[in-house]
Amino acid sequence: MTFHSATAVEQLAPGHFRATINEGWDIAGNANGGYLLAIVARAVTEATGKPDPLTITGHYLAPGQPGPVTIDVDVHRSGGRHSMATAVLATPERKLLVAAATTTDLSTADGPERVDSVPPPIPEPDDCIPINPTSGFPPPFMGRVELRIHPDDAGFAQGKKSGEPRMRGWFRLRDDEPIDTHALVTATDAFPPTIFNADLPVAWTPTIELTAHVRARPTTGWLRCAFATRFITGGYLEADGEIWNAEGHLIAQSRQLALVPRA
Amino acid sequence: MTFHSATAVEQLAPGHFRATINEGWDIAGNANGGYLLAIVARAVTEATGKPDPLTITGHYLAPGQPGPVTIDVDVHRSGGRHSMATAVLATPERKLLVAAATTTDLSTADGPERVDSVPPPIPEPDDCIPINPTSGFPPPFMGRVELRIHPDDAGFAQGKKSGEPRMRGWFRLRDDEPIDTHALVTATDAFPPTIFNADLPVAWTPTIELTAHVRARPTTGWLRCAFATRFITGGYLEADGEIWNAEGHLIAQSRQLALVPRA
Repeated sequence: MTFHSATAVEQLAPGHFRATINEGWDIAGNANGGYLLAIVARAVTEATGKPDPLTITGHYLAPGQPGPVTIDVDVHRSGGRHSMATAVLATPERKLLVAAATTTDLSTADGPERVDSVPPPIPEPDDCIPINPTSGFPPPFMGRVELRIHPDDAGFAQGKKSGEPRMRGWFRLRDDEPIDTHALVTATDAFPPTIFNADLPVAWTPTIELTAHVRARPTTGWLRCAFATRFITGGYLEADGEIWNAEGHLIAQSRQLALVPRA
Repeated sequence: MTFHSATAVEQLAPGHFRATINEGWDIAGNANGGYLLAIVARAVTEATGKPDPLTITGHYLAPGQPGPVTIDVDVHRSGGRHSMATAVLATPERKLLVAAATTTDLSTADGPERVDSVPPPIPEPDDCIPINPTSGFPPPFMGRVELRIHPDDAGFAQGKKSGEPRMRGWFRLRDDEPIDTHALVTATDAFPPTIFNADLPVAWTPTIELTAHVRARPTTGWLRCAFATRFITGGYLEADGEIWNAEGHLIAQSRQLALVPRA
């Protein structure tokens, strides 16, 4: 099943959509947060009539399991260059995810250029470590996306944490499915957590909130990704992400706030 | 008028609040975005019964002028450690700001500590450049907050841009009013824009979206703040902010996405 069909939404009435959390997009039985946010983004771009989620924030209320969901979208502004909406993704029993997003058409993006950064150094994809899915860990979700992890960041899988809370590597969809700006939202939450490489007795950090800025449309091929955490304090951590295309341009930034459970 | 009274909200019915955009919190006639977001945060923390806006995102739809506003809050989750709500701040004529926030009680925050950063180097407040309000520029808003700008970043006011799109300095409220976590939200948008120091013919970059993470409650005294922009591309820029307290602890992070108008 392609990403495109796994995130399909159907509009039943203005602002009211239905979709399906599909099998195989989960981690330990719970749907990946970036996958859920992409479903919401699909509903929001359709409801606002703008193709690209320029900035989208999701707050995660409950884990999602495979099955039918609804997305209710409130459009707060439409027309002009930017539209804005909030959306709630829910099962018949409960709300899973609440989002706020501004949408636009990035095909006409234009302006002065000034960049104070360079793409993160990562060995070529064939020199990185692939992650293949299992029914446990690595999770089934890794069969839907294709990751190659920087060798310096990949030892956690063998119990060898790097000691640095970061995760770098390459992302693409399986079968080299074209990556649209909705898949880019998923990419911001597709890598193993940075905490897996921190020398702390913390195994799991559920996302409270994730914000993704889509700065340009992806081009083809592998996307260069880097995630890092600088502040693990007071029971929370942030993870900052950057995604660059093959031509060396930044195409997305992300930050999530996650809960660090008490030991 | 204190920050506390300038951001006061009154609940008329469950989830329905009224407030006032007060005189003097404006920049060129339009209310500061961080001030508006703090008003929304006040309504959200009151509606959710949790004192601290842990993470709040605002999308700016229209500029705000002094006068009465309403804030309608939808609480999507309450109870437990975190509550979550969306909110719309509006005048009788139009929506100005739409927000999504997760609230909590940071007084009980606890967890393992690992910090890969240091407070940004800034000369002592008395060795920095104060910004005092005028009816034009500097704007009236600078009479409500008190800023001291790093000398290396303050030349823009005399037409001498540093060439680096960043802005560092100190923040407090006037008359040393205690800073709560709502004022911290305002602090993330209180400094002159980073673009003022970039060698680009761009004067004004309206905020599309601002996300603030409040990581701890402020303590007394000056707050050490640093804002920087790394990517001015495709008609947009991000500005990343950090706020540290006098004891050398990070207490807030922010990122905003702003529009870079076509020349």
